[in-house]
Formats: sequence, structure tokens, C-alpha cells
Amino acid sequence: MLGLRHATDKAWAVRAADQLDEVLVDHAHCELKAASNALGLAARSPDFPEVARALVDLAEEEIRHYRQVVLELDRRGTALGKPPVDAYAAELLKRVLASTRDRSAAASLADRLLVGALIEARSCERFRLLADELAARDLPELAAFYEELFVAEARHHRTFVDLAARVRGEEPARSRLAVLAAIEADVAKATGDGASIHG
Amino acid sequence: MLGLRHATDKAWAVRAADQLDEVLVDHAHCELKAASNALGLAARSPDFPEVARALVDLAEEEIRHYRQVVLELDRRGTALGKPPVDAYAAELLKRVLASTRDRSAAASLADRLLVGALIEARSCERFRLLADELAARDLPELAAFYEELFVAEARHHRTFVDLAARVRGEEPARSRLAVLAAIEADVAKATGDGASIHG
Repeated sequence: MLGLRHATDKAWAVRAADQLDEVLVDHAHCELKAASNALGLAARSPDFPEVARALVDLAEEEIRHYRQVVLELDRRGTALGKPPVDAYAAELLKRVLASTRDRSAAASLADRLLVGALIEARSCERFRLLADELAARDLPELAAFYEELFVAEARHHRTFVDLAARVRGEEPARSRLAVLAAIEADVAKATGDGASIHG
Repeated sequence: MLGLRHATDKAWAVRAADQLDEVLVDHAHCELKAASNALGLAARSPDFPEVARALVDLAEEEIRHYRQVVLELDRRGTALGKPPVDAYAAELLKRVLASTRDRSAAASLADRLLVGALIEARSCERFRLLADELAARDLPELAAFYEELFVAEARHHRTFVDLAARVRGEEPARSRLAVLAAIEADVAKATGDGASIHG
């Protein structure tokens, strides 16, 4: 799915649905980090104004998603709580940055955009699994919520790939994405078992 | 004004109006950094959900201001360009963090909120000066824009002080603000001469 090289086991969705409060807390923090990350990338994109603009739009959408998840936490009477450590995202970025000697600003920006694309793809895959599991458990509203987010994450994946292509060119971005997808698969295999969105 | 202990020289506004393109570029980046900073502080505020919520609202407003400044840059045909180094903000945060031995999460969060309050106060003061200078130069639309932002920054200053009071208590936040205002005055005196919002 969306170029991912490792499929999440369906047992993940069962665990996630069993510990929905923890997953929602993790999810809220993921949206906040995604918004903050998009703004940080926008600040790194002064030479690509249309990339900066798209990233700021994306940040606003992630903020809206954050609010929606917080609303669901409020409904359940669950406190937001501290952000769980996101070993997946930290490890992914570390390994991607270590995988190249090209330290130019454009290469680094494109890599960070492609990391964004892969994280969105992984969220997309998992929201799909979670939506199905929640529907099977007769939680139609939450299932519909994750269904909607599954669609949004697929769109964000596309956006990040397109932005990386603008920064590096179509072909180089595509071949680099294949390299990074292999790294992501390793990281997801190593860290992706818990009841959290990625970790 | 707003507890600032050092008044910006009016000659600053003349220099800023003389180099309006540079100031607008710096201003756009300041809004983006302010939005990103507010989201970062929201992520540090899981124990204070109402603080996190207010900070996310603030981030959205800073994003709107960023867009408005970028629109003005577009109108003038000026490229956004790289973010100038913000020596003022970096030095201010560094000196504030070095001014206390209290390394608790709440103390650190409150200090960062008070730094936000002081940066907003400084922006507020300077937008007032700039609005007057632009009006004197018969640039009524830009003068009105900075007038509007002057009001917004005053409100943000208030918000940050209130949030710090929620985290630390009313009295401790107020006395700490006085200490930090003295540090800010030193930093503004040392770095605040150029044609940029703070630096």
C-alpha cells in the first residue's frame, strides 16, 4: 500500500482497539508533531515558496485533526497525558539522514519530505486496519472517523511525494523514495508492535 | 509598554520603513517561528490541557498572520528568502534558561511562556512604531495592517502571561516576569538595532 514494503500485522489493530485510550493519546500527539514538523519544513523551504505554502496548509489540517482527536478524548473523559516516545519516527529520521553523504539543503529537505510521505503512508495503512476493526466491534462513529483520516493520510502521502519531486526533480525523488521505503520497512518491523500509531 | 524595560528608539522605525522588504521577510519568518514555537509548547503542556488548547489556537492565528505577510510580499514581488538569524530570540531564551536552577517541567514551561509574552510585547511595541512611521509616509494600507497586528500582539502578550500564571500560579508568574523583563531589556539593547522585527 502506497509503496510500503512491510505490511502491518492485522493483530496490531486488535491490540490497538483493545487499548483505544492509549492509541488516541498517541494519535493526538502524532497530529501535533506532524503540524509542528510541517511548519519546520516550511521554514526550511524559502527557495521553494510553493512547497512552503503547501506545508503550511498541511500544518493547518493536522491542527484540525489534533482538535478532533482531543474532542474524542474529552468525550471519553481521557486526559491527553504526556507524549509517548515515538521511537519509530526518531529512528526513521536518524537512519534516513545517515543513509546519504549529500548534505545539501535541497537533498536534506527532500529527504525530510519523503520521510513525511512514508510516515503518512504508515498512518494511512494503520488507520485503514483500525477503522475495519472498530467497525467489526460495532463502533461505527469512531470507525467513520478513522476511515476519514485514512483518506486524508493517503492524500498527504501524495502531497509529500509531489513536494519532494519539486525540490529534487521527479526521477531522483522517486528513486530515493524506494531506498527510504526499504529503511522504513526495517524500522516498522523493529518498532511497530505496540498499541500506538507507529511505535 | 506591556512591562518592557527598554524602549526601542524611534530611529528603528525609520530604518525599518526604509528597508521594508527585509523587514517583511523577517516578519514572515517570525510568524512561522511563533506558530511552530506555540505548537512545541502545546506538546510540552499535557498536564495543562487548557494551556495546550490556547497555544494551538495561537498557532493557528500566527499561521494566518504568516499568510497575510506572504501575501504582501507577493504583492511587492519580493521573494520570501531564507530566514535571517534571530539573535534576539535565541539569546533571550538562552539567558532565561540559564537564569534559574529550577529544572522542573512546570518551571521550564512557565519560563518559555513568559519568554513568549516578552517577545509578543516587543513585537507589539515595534509594530506600533512601524505603523506610525508608515502612516507618516502615506502608506495607509500597510500602516493599518501593522496597527491590526499591534493589537493582536498585545492580546498574545496577555494570553502568554495568563497561561504562565495557570502553570506556576499568579504571584510566582508575575515576579518571574519582572526578572525576565530585565533580561529582555538587556538583550533588546544589545541586539535590537537592525531593520528586522527584533534583531
